[in-house]
Amino acid sequence: MSLADWDRDNCSVARALELIGDRHTVLVLREAFVGERRFDRIQRHTGVARNILSDRLNKLVAHGILARRPYQERPVRHEYVLTDKGLDLYPVLVSLMQWGTRHGGGDAPILLEHRGCGAIVEPHLACPSCGEAVGARDMRALPGPDAVLRQSA
Amino acid sequence: MSLADWDRDNCSVARALELIGDRHTVLVLREAFVGERRFDRIQRHTGVARNILSDRLNKLVAHGILARRPYQERPVRHEYVLTDKGLDLYPVLVSLMQWGTRHGGGDAPILLEHRGCGAIVEPHLACPSCGEAVGARDMRALPGPDAVLRQSA
Repeated sequence: MSLADWDRDNCSVARALELIGDRHTVLVLREAFVGERRFDRIQRHTGVARNILSDRLNKLVAHGILARRPYQERPVRHEYVLTDKGLDLYPVLVSLMQWGTRHGGGDAPILLEHRGCGAIVEPHLACPSCGEAVGARDMRALPGPDAVLRQSA
Repeated sequence: MSLADWDRDNCSVARALELIGDRHTVLVLREAFVGERRFDRIQRHTGVARNILSDRLNKLVAHGILARRPYQERPVRHEYVLTDKGLDLYPVLVSLMQWGTRHGGGDAPILLEHRGCGAIVEPHLACPSCGEAVGARDMRALPGPDAVLRQSA
């Protein structure tokens, strides 16, 4: 059984993209990760039209990626913060940023400091077993126990 | 200077999204990473309409993420393979897959084996300085030397 014959209906990448596979949504998440919580500031920094931004924020809240909470009464105003599920998207955002810096033809506007050891670093994908940094050529993908063989592949 | 005041025009995430910030494009990249190289098979596995797929493949080739090369003459047929620039997207795809597995409410159809040590692992983001696994709460983002202060933030 080759990996290519696995049934893509059962694909985690596709499931993730259903929730965040939209450029505007990722820009909103970027703002959440740099600490922007309020509609107007997110709107200004992303340039996303207000109706689209409102839709994307509602969807992120509905999917439990952002939480909406009031920060003011009369009138009530809400802010948006990442939930644990949202914070788990950190590797996606960091990887996108690093790739964009390396291959997008620009500079690195942000530095990342590891609070634990104090070093300014570029976090990388590593093997939790041996600790080595890993890339595409270091890894082999195998059909897992939940893979479904495609009938007509 | 707060990170929120940095000028988003100079954003690596946005630059990455200009190239791959589209659900169809990411599905095409998924196919490339599992070894699908040919139009018809990629089309079947992604369900992307042929005209859209053709457009996305052309863009990925134009951006140097995929390379097109002939595998047959009379008639000439081409296949698509990841370039080094494309292979560098591996952490993005792996992170998306892991998040989709953890939070998308499904199973993990793929296992990843580290060729170097032979272990079946879930590669994680790690600090290259101390080796610890890191997530959003472990890292602090700072404006880098190339950050531009926004005039009207």
